[in-house]
Amino acid sequence: MSDAHARFMGRAIELSAERMRANLGGPFGAVIVRDGEIVSEGFNKVTSANDPTAHAEVSAIREACTALGTFSLEGCVIYTSCEPCPMCLAAIYWARLDAVYFANTRKDAADIGFDDDHIYREIPKEIEDRAIEMRHVELQEARDIFEEWRVKPDKIMY
Amino acid sequence: MSDAHARFMGRAIELSAERMRANLGGPFGAVIVRDGEIVSEGFNKVTSANDPTAHAEVSAIREACTALGTFSLEGCVIYTSCEPCPMCLAAIYWARLDAVYFANTRKDAADIGFDDDHIYREIPKEIEDRAIEMRHVELQEARDIFEEWRVKPDKIMY
Repeated sequence: MSDAHARFMGRAIELSAERMRANLGGPFGAVIVRDGEIVSEGFNKVTSANDPTAHAEVSAIREACTALGTFSLEGCVIYTSCEPCPMCLAAIYWARLDAVYFANTRKDAADIGFDDDHIYREIPKEIEDRAIEMRHVELQEARDIFEEWRVKPDKIMY
Repeated sequence: MSDAHARFMGRAIELSAERMRANLGGPFGAVIVRDGEIVSEGFNKVTSANDPTAHAEVSAIREACTALGTFSLEGCVIYTSCEPCPMCLAAIYWARLDAVYFANTRKDAADIGFDDDHIYREIPKEIEDRAIEMRHVELQEARDIFEEWRVKPDKIMY
């Protein structure tokens, strides 16, 4: 790792430790960097914020978008103390981040009691094989809304 | 569908249409229900809130957790106008929802320009095969924080 890489990863790990010790959530931290500068910091605050989506990466993405006034983080990279769970990984795709650097792995997370690995195994399954009940309800009225979007002249894609 | 199911799904679809027409985001709506009552409503506000994580389901989950003062939605179900993307599906697992009912599919979403299906295909890949650059940086200091969590006496699991 270059000095800059080590510094950004070090900050992500530092956040994971500090905020865990403050009892704000699980031991996870992340920073988002653009042009060699940190634009946001995130940490896990699931239990303190009553928000199961408030993982370090999702929190850092939200903060970065607020700071930069955009819904696209193209040109930015994320450093995270642990491999992103599927929620955070998909959020990284939606946010259009350029790259992801992580320290601990999903296996390490599973070993200390987090469901990352389980959820990774659930995502590719067929609907009917998942641990959670899922039902597809086909409705023409829902299709019609999608068609309305398709032809909408002033839509903003993301 | 029972009358109650049809009513909840109808509300999710109604939200998807109303909020799209108000130019708040993509054509997606969701409601979370407990004991036959709607506890939260969500809609896509990615472009209006500058938040790439603000999909209908994630928004509904965050609202429900705020309304109920909890990070676990056990005992609740979600109705959504479209099959959840991997971010929202993983969020549903983290939130411990009991069941998911959806109308349009990920293929329908792909057909009108959304990346759901692409991201579904990316998630199960090996790190090095993904469209986004991902690097594992092994660091003992990160492992130490996980070990600190493992033995932490007052931790709150989720």
